[in-house]
Amino acid sequence: MKKFLNDPNDFVAEMIEGVHLANPGKFKYVPEFNLLYRSDRPDNSKVSLVQGSGSGHEPAHVMAVGPGMLDAASPGAVFAAPPVDTCLACIEALKSDAGVLVLINNYQGDRMSWDMAIEMAQAQGIKVEKFIIADDVSVPNSTYSIGRRGVAGNFFVIKACGAAAERGASLEELLRIADKVNSQVRSMGVALTSCVPPLKGAQLFDIAEDEMEVGIGIHGEPGRRRDKLKAADAIVDEMFDAIASDLPFKSGDRIAMMVNGLGGTPISELYLLYRRAAQRAQKAGLTVVRNYVGEYCTSLEMAGASLTLLRLDAELEDLLAAPAEIPIRVF
Amino acid sequence: MKKFLNDPNDFVAEMIEGVHLANPGKFKYVPEFNLLYRSDRPDNSKVSLVQGSGSGHEPAHVMAVGPGMLDAASPGAVFAAPPVDTCLACIEALKSDAGVLVLINNYQGDRMSWDMAIEMAQAQGIKVEKFIIADDVSVPNSTYSIGRRGVAGNFFVIKACGAAAERGASLEELLRIADKVNSQVRSMGVALTSCVPPLKGAQLFDIAEDEMEVGIGIHGEPGRRRDKLKAADAIVDEMFDAIASDLPFKSGDRIAMMVNGLGGTPISELYLLYRRAAQRAQKAGLTVVRNYVGEYCTSLEMAGASLTLLRLDAELEDLLAAPAEIPIRVF
Repeated sequence: MKKFLNDPNDFVAEMIEGVHLANPGKFKYVPEFNLLYRSDRPDNSKVSLVQGSGSGHEPAHVMAVGPGMLDAASPGAVFAAPPVDTCLACIEALKSDAGVLVLINNYQGDRMSWDMAIEMAQAQGIKVEKFIIADDVSVPNSTYSIGRRGVAGNFFVIKACGAAAERGASLEELLRIADKVNSQVRSMGVALTSCVPPLKGAQLFDIAEDEMEVGIGIHGEPGRRRDKLKAADAIVDEMFDAIASDLPFKSGDRIAMMVNGLGGTPISELYLLYRRAAQRAQKAGLTVVRNYVGEYCTSLEMAGASLTLLRLDAELEDLLAAPAEIPIRVF
Repeated sequence: MKKFLNDPNDFVAEMIEGVHLANPGKFKYVPEFNLLYRSDRPDNSKVSLVQGSGSGHEPAHVMAVGPGMLDAASPGAVFAAPPVDTCLACIEALKSDAGVLVLINNYQGDRMSWDMAIEMAQAQGIKVEKFIIADDVSVPNSTYSIGRRGVAGNFFVIKACGAAAERGASLEELLRIADKVNSQVRSMGVALTSCVPPLKGAQLFDIAEDEMEVGIGIHGEPGRRRDKLKAADAIVDEMFDAIASDLPFKSGDRIAMMVNGLGGTPISELYLLYRRAAQRAQKAGLTVVRNYVGEYCTSLEMAGASLTLLRLDAELEDLLAAPAEIPIRVF
């Protein structure tokens, strides 16, 4: 296992501790629940936006907490749903008169934990709703999900809802916006390698030196097929065609486009993929209003990438352009 | 070779094309010379800040072009110095009455190309100077360098000089600032894996499943020693001790601290490393004024990380806090 690691049991806690130490004064950190939240929250006039799924997808979602983004993250262990008491502690800590919105990527474990916690919180009189994100076109159902998986499209739901929440949108408004983003966003990913969960200490799945997994899930779930590794342009073409035909995206659409690295792929290769995706978008008559090339939703150190397209309208363009702060300094 | 790649000969060009396409209107791109520069440059009243070394270190340096950063980048092939005609074309395109400052990481190939190009440009009457960056404490001399290598500390020279140049600093002022940063910055890196240059198509060096290279160079140059992989905290401790004792950094110093990923290491592990580095800094009486956790200077998909400390003063704190724009959107 080639990782920077101390005791594998401490991987998630030490990573969150690092985020906390790197942002003095900005966050409250509750180690007992892996809970990290903005130190200026809760604010009773603002809906609290929270998310908690398995770890191993960083920067999603513990590094997506900040003004204009999430108010709190309460991740579980690597690739494991957070326990119910963690979810409940998160809702209780972030409760607000305006309500709490829980954004959940579509995995059964996450849904079960949050469903139970939400029910318990509502029984206490806390105003809280959930929204399920499912943007992956690769397969209709998957190892850990009934229905499509939630993957990198999650970012756009966070960003749009985070911006609207900062401006004072109500819980009902945020549910409408989340639904709009989710209904207009599509993703697909390809893996070149597997990855090693720290506590497992072994590859999540086997893949040969000349193979790729087309339609990979972010926990290593099988995709559409295992195939021989192809040229980068051919890989982009397959992802682009699968995504564009699904919504479908149409000539004249204004879009946001993301090339997301899965953790082990360098940014040079991501820009090489973006090049082809931009060419394909142009050919299809799509105007790329905003683009995102980097790591947004990863699978530990997996080499691979996903493509995400989001159809925009005036409201979404405005929300995506709103200011946001995250715990990661870039330049 | 598990990469997103078309023809390996096109790797650098297609990557830069991706950066260009992702930033419409912001850059001029001259494919013949791998030259990417700000579309508002040259401006005769401002010193042009340029850099060109081998590719494969992205985001350095082609993704560090923008207001408050570099004015141009002219990278060579992967891990290869740019040819003299590329360097000369870069200087000619960016020439300014205020001058051109070429920032060079200390590798013989880069120095030779730029030295010759600078001499040719000066013979044309172009005002141009160079500055050599050498921040790696790992080894006194290395495979491709006489003297210390230039590694991730490069970022701080770019940022400080980029901010000062934007404010109208003269070429002489910028040389003074570059020298101040370079004399107060120290780095060291550790590799867990090798990497595969696209045209080589094979691992740059062999390393066993349970080994690490302590003091790795960013082109795979050997470091201080090959050792068994240790716990993350022990690795940070060794890097921290080597760096802190070298300047030396002293209790009471205000510093910027960077944990830089080498390309294949996920950001979760980088924050786990940052945690220990922050603890060590605190114990040593160093105040971390600014921190940077992410990828700044990579070696393709190499798993590994480096630590950089920069001693600050009022001038450098001010320059690091100045606004800057880069081609990469984060949120």
